[in-house]
Amino acid sequence: MQRFPTLAALGAACRDLPDGDREAAAAVLSRQARLTKPPGSLGRLEDFVAWLARWQRRPVPKLEKVQVLVFAGNHGVTAQGVSPYPAAVTSQMVANFAVGGAAINQLAALAGARLDVVPLELDRPTGDFTETPAMDESEFLAAVAAGHGALAADIDLLCLGEMGIGNTTAGAAMAAGLFGGGGARWAGRGTGLDDAGLARKRAVIDTALARHALLLDDPLQVARALGGRELAAILGATLAARQRAVPVLLDGFVCTAAAAPLARMAPSGLDHALIAHLSAEAGHRALAAELGGSPLLDLGMRLGEASGAALAVVVLRAALACHLGMATFDEAGVTDRS
Amino acid sequence: MQRFPTLAALGAACRDLPDGDREAAAAVLSRQARLTKPPGSLGRLEDFVAWLARWQRRPVPKLEKVQVLVFAGNHGVTAQGVSPYPAAVTSQMVANFAVGGAAINQLAALAGARLDVVPLELDRPTGDFTETPAMDESEFLAAVAAGHGALAADIDLLCLGEMGIGNTTAGAAMAAGLFGGGGARWAGRGTGLDDAGLARKRAVIDTALARHALLLDDPLQVARALGGRELAAILGATLAARQRAVPVLLDGFVCTAAAAPLARMAPSGLDHALIAHLSAEAGHRALAAELGGSPLLDLGMRLGEASGAALAVVVLRAALACHLGMATFDEAGVTDRS
Repeated sequence: MQRFPTLAALGAACRDLPDGDREAAAAVLSRQARLTKPPGSLGRLEDFVAWLARWQRRPVPKLEKVQVLVFAGNHGVTAQGVSPYPAAVTSQMVANFAVGGAAINQLAALAGARLDVVPLELDRPTGDFTETPAMDESEFLAAVAAGHGALAADIDLLCLGEMGIGNTTAGAAMAAGLFGGGGARWAGRGTGLDDAGLARKRAVIDTALARHALLLDDPLQVARALGGRELAAILGATLAARQRAVPVLLDGFVCTAAAAPLARMAPSGLDHALIAHLSAEAGHRALAAELGGSPLLDLGMRLGEASGAALAVVVLRAALACHLGMATFDEAGVTDRS
Repeated sequence: MQRFPTLAALGAACRDLPDGDREAAAAVLSRQARLTKPPGSLGRLEDFVAWLARWQRRPVPKLEKVQVLVFAGNHGVTAQGVSPYPAAVTSQMVANFAVGGAAINQLAALAGARLDVVPLELDRPTGDFTETPAMDESEFLAAVAAGHGALAADIDLLCLGEMGIGNTTAGAAMAAGLFGGGGARWAGRGTGLDDAGLARKRAVIDTALARHALLLDDPLQVARALGGRELAAILGATLAARQRAVPVLLDGFVCTAAAAPLARMAPSGLDHALIAHLSAEAGHRALAAELGGSPLLDLGMRLGEASGAALAVVVLRAALACHLGMATFDEAGVTDRS
């Protein structure tokens, strides 16, 4: 496992990212133009194949080995009453993942993907970031390393997700720290807060932003002070994927916020990642817009667990199946337009 | 095969549609509330399962047998220069479907669906509807009957689509006849018209609307005069599905326009059908809005062939897999919210 001994070392890795293979993407687009369909008529499906080629660094992409990685963590900020569910639900849901009873179990199976769930010190919640940074540097770097080391060998695509009671508050705080605006801009109802809970969550975020104001210029300090272990692990896994030529599907709001420091540290830092779906969680549309991303799906989902990412795998499979399986105009004897 | 001897007989069938099973839908929603997820957090996936239950008339829906039906037809209006492709491409693409070289072959396979392609008198194009009705009553009723009789036995879901050079002009003319507005509102670029071609297409639609103005009060006359054989077959198949408790996924613009007379003849006429995707074809957003439908996918596709409908099958499979496979809070020992 790659270790990052310091925040500075991690920052250097985040700013030194390999590009994808633009020629591979161009080869895909060239084939697309010869397939038996009007040019561009498969819409974004055509772009997705070129994106896979670019970031897998292969002119003929594949989706044989797909991994869904779900990181779980607990959050000290739950003491502030930011979730209608008790923190114990995080470990209960990890147990549910283990026996196949959660949504992600069904969706990963449908996607033809392996599912790995990585609980991160669930009995040691992060600090309550209204009072203290969520993690010290060593805790943060350990969580990033856990994510960085969690990718399976030789995967063609990585789906990322999270589970952690209280973590929409952490995601919203990170989004605020990275992109400006306070609790009013970024807080949503999470698993189902009522109006009073939502007001409390907004205030919690504003308090945290004020307390850690001096750290907000550094995206990694934002992730350390306002994030959580599962969010840090998502950051590490997204970084590892880039280094290993693995395209990434990010799940919803929390997952996108967790990976966002990469985009703040390098303009192309998330070019190898797509936002799989537009979450119904309030801040996701604004967050996707800040990142210049257009989510693949918009089905009102807000579950987390990589559920939206796993569902989007099938869209990529469809795109690739058309690309690989369709005949060209010449092969099929179909007249191209004049 | 059910025959409709007259337009009046067909109209009577279209106005006498069975309802779905509302208790079956309620049973689905009741189970959803007990599954290990925050209420509503699977968004539209939860609604889709209830919709399947209602229109399959079963409290536990299934998706074992899925049929993709693609109807093909040729159009006299191609004489007006409304497509950049020659009309010969319709039969060439039917041949391409037969050998597995088209997008829909790949997508139907991915969806786990059988694919049936029904060419409708391709060597006998409909009349040029700028001059004459596209079909006489007997031709129209024959095409409706062909669609009505094309459903496979005991299917759980039907995906509908079309192939026909020139048929976005027919779809746009039907949308205009049914919902008002002229060529400027409904014509799009189809397979790739340039600006001059688009202007010509708009004028063609306006000419047709003026010529058949006296027929526009009757949705079936609109379909006869301004549609085409493959559009009439889609209407027949959508009607048959309703009568046989089969939910329907409509593909893009042409397919939605073809089925739309059912909604004009009975307020709930298309409640058993979902619009699978929002086509990039210009008129589809307005058409979906007229029908009160919210497409499942929005991926910039505009191919036809039932391609978007087949892709959306996987979303329904995901919804059903979660519904059937997830544990309840009780089963999993997960604490529900207080």
